[in-house]
Amino acid sequence: MDFAPSERSQALAERLTRFMREEVGPAESVFAASLTGSPDHQVWRQPAIMETLKAKARGAGLWNLFLPDAEHGAGLSNAEYAPLAEIMGHSFIAPEVFNCSAPDTGNMEVLHRYGSDEQKTRWLKPLLAGEIRSAFGMTEPDVASSDATNMQATARIDGDQVVLNGRKWWTTGAGHPHCRFVIFMGVSNPDAQPYQRHTMVICPLDTPGVKIERMLPVFHHYDEPSGHGELSFTDVRVPIGNIILGPGRGFEIAQGRLGPGRVHHCMRAIGAAERALSLLCKRAASRVAFGKPLAELGGNADIIANLRMVIDQARLLTLKTAWTLDTLGTKAALSLISQIKVVVPNVAQQAAEAAIQIHGAAGLSDDFPLTQLFAYARVLRIADGPDEVHRGVVAKLEAKAQASKDFF
Amino acid sequence: MDFAPSERSQALAERLTRFMREEVGPAESVFAASLTGSPDHQVWRQPAIMETLKAKARGAGLWNLFLPDAEHGAGLSNAEYAPLAEIMGHSFIAPEVFNCSAPDTGNMEVLHRYGSDEQKTRWLKPLLAGEIRSAFGMTEPDVASSDATNMQATARIDGDQVVLNGRKWWTTGAGHPHCRFVIFMGVSNPDAQPYQRHTMVICPLDTPGVKIERMLPVFHHYDEPSGHGELSFTDVRVPIGNIILGPGRGFEIAQGRLGPGRVHHCMRAIGAAERALSLLCKRAASRVAFGKPLAELGGNADIIANLRMVIDQARLLTLKTAWTLDTLGTKAALSLISQIKVVVPNVAQQAAEAAIQIHGAAGLSDDFPLTQLFAYARVLRIADGPDEVHRGVVAKLEAKAQASKDFF
Amino acid sequence: MDFAPSERSQALAERLTRFMREEVGPAESVFAASLTGSPDHQVWRQPAIMETLKAKARGAGLWNLFLPDAEHGAGLSNAEYAPLAEIMGHSFIAPEVFNCSAPDTGNMEVLHRYGSDEQKTRWLKPLLAGEIRSAFGMTEPDVASSDATNMQATARIDGDQVVLNGRKWWTTGAGHPHCRFVIFMGVSNPDAQPYQRHTMVICPLDTPGVKIERMLPVFHHYDEPSGHGELSFTDVRVPIGNIILGPGRGFEIAQGRLGPGRVHHCMRAIGAAERALSLLCKRAASRVAFGKPLAELGGNADIIANLRMVIDQARLLTLKTAWTLDTLGTKAALSLISQIKVVVPNVAQQAAEAAIQIHGAAGLSDDFPLTQLFAYARVLRIADGPDEVHRGVVAKLEAKAQASKDFF
Amino acid sequence: MDFAPSERSQALAERLTRFMREEVGPAESVFAASLTGSPDHQVWRQPAIMETLKAKARGAGLWNLFLPDAEHGAGLSNAEYAPLAEIMGHSFIAPEVFNCSAPDTGNMEVLHRYGSDEQKTRWLKPLLAGEIRSAFGMTEPDVASSDATNMQATARIDGDQVVLNGRKWWTTGAGHPHCRFVIFMGVSNPDAQPYQRHTMVICPLDTPGVKIERMLPVFHHYDEPSGHGELSFTDVRVPIGNIILGPGRGFEIAQGRLGPGRVHHCMRAIGAAERALSLLCKRAASRVAFGKPLAELGGNADIIANLRMVIDQARLLTLKTAWTLDTLGTKAALSLISQIKVVVPNVAQQAAEAAIQIHGAAGLSDDFPLTQLFAYARVLRIADGPDEVHRGVVAKLEAKAQASKDFF
Repeated sequence: MDFAPSERSQALAERLTRFMREEVGPAESVFAASLTGSPDHQVWRQPAIMETLKAKARGAGLWNLFLPDAEHGAGLSNAEYAPLAEIMGHSFIAPEVFNCSAPDTGNMEVLHRYGSDEQKTRWLKPLLAGEIRSAFGMTEPDVASSDATNMQATARIDGDQVVLNGRKWWTTGAGHPHCRFVIFMGVSNPDAQPYQRHTMVICPLDTPGVKIERMLPVFHHYDEPSGHGELSFTDVRVPIGNIILGPGRGFEIAQGRLGPGRVHHCMRAIGAAERALSLLCKRAASRVAFGKPLAELGGNADIIANLRMVIDQARLLTLKTAWTLDTLGTKAALSLISQIKVVVPNVAQQAAEAAIQIHGAAGLSDDFPLTQLFAYARVLRIADGPDEVHRGVVAKLEAKAQASKDFF
Repeated sequence: MDFAPSERSQALAERLTRFMREEVGPAESVFAASLTGSPDHQVWRQPAIMETLKAKARGAGLWNLFLPDAEHGAGLSNAEYAPLAEIMGHSFIAPEVFNCSAPDTGNMEVLHRYGSDEQKTRWLKPLLAGEIRSAFGMTEPDVASSDATNMQATARIDGDQVVLNGRKWWTTGAGHPHCRFVIFMGVSNPDAQPYQRHTMVICPLDTPGVKIERMLPVFHHYDEPSGHGELSFTDVRVPIGNIILGPGRGFEIAQGRLGPGRVHHCMRAIGAAERALSLLCKRAASRVAFGKPLAELGGNADIIANLRMVIDQARLLTLKTAWTLDTLGTKAALSLISQIKVVVPNVAQQAAEAAIQIHGAAGLSDDFPLTQLFAYARVLRIADGPDEVHRGVVAKLEAKAQASKDFF
Repeated sequence: MDFAPSERSQALAERLTRFMREEVGPAESVFAASLTGSPDHQVWRQPAIMETLKAKARGAGLWNLFLPDAEHGAGLSNAEYAPLAEIMGHSFIAPEVFNCSAPDTGNMEVLHRYGSDEQKTRWLKPLLAGEIRSAFGMTEPDVASSDATNMQATARIDGDQVVLNGRKWWTTGAGHPHCRFVIFMGVSNPDAQPYQRHTMVICPLDTPGVKIERMLPVFHHYDEPSGHGELSFTDVRVPIGNIILGPGRGFEIAQGRLGPGRVHHCMRAIGAAERALSLLCKRAASRVAFGKPLAELGGNADIIANLRMVIDQARLLTLKTAWTLDTLGTKAALSLISQIKVVVPNVAQQAAEAAIQIHGAAGLSDDFPLTQLFAYARVLRIADGPDEVHRGVVAKLEAKAQASKDFF
Repeated sequence: MDFAPSERSQALAERLTRFMREEVGPAESVFAASLTGSPDHQVWRQPAIMETLKAKARGAGLWNLFLPDAEHGAGLSNAEYAPLAEIMGHSFIAPEVFNCSAPDTGNMEVLHRYGSDEQKTRWLKPLLAGEIRSAFGMTEPDVASSDATNMQATARIDGDQVVLNGRKWWTTGAGHPHCRFVIFMGVSNPDAQPYQRHTMVICPLDTPGVKIERMLPVFHHYDEPSGHGELSFTDVRVPIGNIILGPGRGFEIAQGRLGPGRVHHCMRAIGAAERALSLLCKRAASRVAFGKPLAELGGNADIIANLRMVIDQARLLTLKTAWTLDTLGTKAALSLISQIKVVVPNVAQQAAEAAIQIHGAAGLSDDFPLTQLFAYARVLRIADGPDEVHRGVVAKLEAKAQASKDFF
């Protein structure tokens, strides 16, 4: 048993932290001030400072750290990358700086593992270079997407083309001015087993029939310039070569994509929780009421202590999940993956909630990033399967495990 | 013991419900579509439909129901008005329709109870007529306003004038195009006892030296066209006749204002909680996953049951507070007033939270009023004293009560 | 709306409180010291002081207050009796003093409402006189009794006799030396609708074939001298006249019995919660650590405030349930009855839990009644239907209510 | 980073598990049936089966595994022993079987690290051999012992003797028939700094002036045959050579003793939590209501999933604490030690609580070990410092850590 990070993970963590402190931190307000979207929150531009930061990060070797492949990425294991994802999670603008944004990381992994050579050349290469961005179209407005088999969009194969129809929403990243394609998931084999009906297809955003109907806010915030889109697909035709892995293998890909993806999400959320706690402690130490700093009043110390405990536990659970993925594979990690998907966003929400309360009304405004941290955590409790679904997975696997126990 | 409302309260409740169903409900989307504020969320206009609704409500005798005075208002007790406030709380646009908006109701009560004849003619009359709106300036950005004695703004008496200086924020209603004055609270007697230092002064918004620095968002939402303002007061001079009740009597007024005001706030929040529960149940009944309506899946029934229980209890506590104010007065109701100030906003937040989760990502968007309900409840946990301060009040009063008990 | 108790309820409350303070309180330790049960906790004697107290209470007119019938009881409505039940709930020995113990109160009500003249003469009369006690046999060890239709014991009619077979446990009161009969519920009409299969039968404890197999502890405590028994019934024959109301009407009786019974239980539990809070406050005020009374340390004030809030709310909900039973009947009160069955025991458990923690290790010992208060509340979360079942009832009734709402 | 146990830890875990399954499990009921204490729960005998099991365990090399010293113990690090302590925690009788009981393990460590040669020969040797047992006297009835500096007992040095006076309670193990001495802590240097006033002294139980006043129950259970004693010390004289380490060094020893001791306690409590979860799952799978196993009803799956998540997290936090103690020392582990002291007992209590509820009334009786598991966890939330004190420690250390952070 060894809780210390590997040497190269530790070394990268130190360089990353320095970069965050020296470059990313100071850039946050510049970035925010550069958001010059349309008044209706539907069309956005990329702030110039982001491209500057990306170039610096790439130059500093802090680029594509997420990719376990040593040739195109950093060659880190999940357990080695996890602490780096946490560091990036302290700032909303950081992941893009290091080319480690969702959903691009997941899409890059999918293309890297399952993409054809042509797909790699055309889509993976520019993604790895940070030249383009991408989106992932799964959730649909008309059905409860918590049950993925409810998915109704279609990807009908017609000769050497695939015809896409349907409506997707919460397609994160679709609003980014650099977004060039969406990985679309739809039914192609309606008569197959429920988890062998769906196909993943690369759909360039400029294909006729693709329409961004609107960008969706989360707690009235649009996550500009990336955003969450509602997209309609009407008789959209793409070449059959845009199918990833093969027809009916959409869930197979999704399954492989989700393990590391959830570890990344969760570690970033741990970073977000730490930032909330950090802001909370700063405010509690500096603001005075009834003759004392808030930190010394009533139950505030308990709040701080409880946050420290739940964050530390959530981090350990996520690291163990990463390690299990690395050493024992996805199947052995299934319960853990669902566990962190429940635990971590709830912890991050709790941290943001508490930080807001300590800040008083200021915490509700844009003067602090707290409502954004809250909204970020709140989204994660729904995205990629709501808490309820993941608790169900954990319970089912637990029942199985208990049934085969012979000890007491 | 009798839990039934009085006959006139019941009759008004029925008429109000019908008006809400027939007039207010359908107007919500029209109102939202008419919000034509500036792109920077700082200048707003009043949607025409609001004035139409106000005229109808006034014509229907559903006007100023909050005012216990029978001549200028409905002459209802707090316990009689409370269920009506709950009904209004179902819609964010309702309170203004019936001239029962915060902070105007509190300001009208203050002027009605403590105002001079001149103040009544000049400010109360048009408020009661719904011709103007008003604001209340208490919270300040530079100090922890949870400790009201921290207040630093000054209201220096200089001959027959009062000179106001300082900065206020979260001045609700300051952005409304009809807002004409703010009741400003500041230190005039710095050497008096802490609770006898402050004075309330009527300050017309167009007085030289008053500046709305900016409007503040709550979870990125501006509550247009009313809003929360940050105002600076720089050597603002108003006639000494604008002082309410007398110098140094600010906290005395605040105390008298707060009891009924909190009952109003809390009953509206109960209405908000009921609306969240109603939306939750509708979605849970209509959306299907894993072959069943959400309402029948996992712990969702528990969530519904728990909300029913906490809402019903919170309502009873608020009604008892109203009744205690009516029959035994403010002092006897002190603990109860602080209790509902903690309990009800937390219940409303819990209801909105749960409703968001059942709605999935849709609940986070503007397609449903859930994030707005959440933000409304969340604000209430800070405004007029945060949870922490009110728990402290309850605990102190409890300790006193227990010490004088002689039973077990 | 009126939250004041009726005059006679108030007058009785004052007399009862005085009796509790002057007679019951001082007798608690005498009673405890007189418990001279067998070393194996299976055979008990009635402490003499109980009979003395009963005689005094009866003499003082504080007797059978629970019975709404004015001839044999106090003629109080549920809402009038409820505050008296709360007062009795402060002491474990009090209910018997006033002849208001469970399960006798429920049994007396059943016999009073549904019993034949002969049953009244033989069993109700001595119960009302406090000469005998009784038990109620419903829960069974071999099935999940949370689903009452699981009940397997049989009450087969054989000519002019009923033959009882089966095993009951958690038959409260069966260990009391004065216990003379148990109301036994079993299947007599196995082919009828599920809720028309069961019959209630009066079974004298000394009937051949009835055996108390053992007394059951709750958290290692036996509630001596009353206790919870596990009873076997083997070919027990009683006259057919011992059937109450008629064959197959067991659930009909149970339904009618449960409303007031749950109000009584819940109000006593509120009293228990108040006693826990009272002990908590006393300890918190008198014990010093780190230079301050515990009441002023950390989050302890929050704990006190939270308890005050949840207890006050739970009480109001229970009173409203009593009032609804009185004015609108059982059917209108169904959701409320299940609500208080969940809310109140949880509140009482929370109060006992918190009081234990403030007392430190002393709170875990017998030096304070806190573990007994905890166990009492904990039992109530299971007895008469566990939390889960009652939440299910509330959710189902809520879904129905929401579906028929036409307001927002 | 490596979450796998060391090879020798893993090998021992397997042997230990087999021993638990084959020897300890079947012996539990025999042990329980052999408890032949006095009717007043004050004098106990050691069940013969315990000595048999001890001999077997010793023979199997599963003996003194807790002791990091390789000569007298197993030479395991804290991180290596921790998983073994968890396994032992599944059964209340297990720790004594393997000579790993509290408070003996702590006392052995103290004597091993700080004891004189004579102390080692006379007291450590028979403890290591499992021939005698011991107790630790710290908590006092008359003061809030959560503040350790409140301690009032005295250990006055008088020539070549130490004179002990005072009253201790919750002296765990004092009732064990094999208990031969108590480590007594008292004030010897009243004028020194608060943490340099107290001295630890070995006091044989048969020294004149030592009296076991009574054994104390926890939730009416006496933990026979070990128990928790209240002891009075009246002019008790022991040789000065019985002082451990030196006068005024009591807190220094306590500090060193607590780190590993808390890891042991917590890992055993994790084992207890796992046993509760295991019983819960078994019952939920086998008991049927409303046509389904309980596991598939309502929120029960959530309960199971939540327990799996909190237990796994608590275990990881404890293992990290053990690893930190091993690699970075006590000072670096201070916050973690306090964190697990809060987290783990609460998790174990939550598991026992939930398991009781799923078992219905049976869970409250002695038919299952659930109330005992609950009481065990409940005690741990108070013993060795209540939750509140440890949260305070965590908050203070967090404030310090945050103040020195320079990252965001």
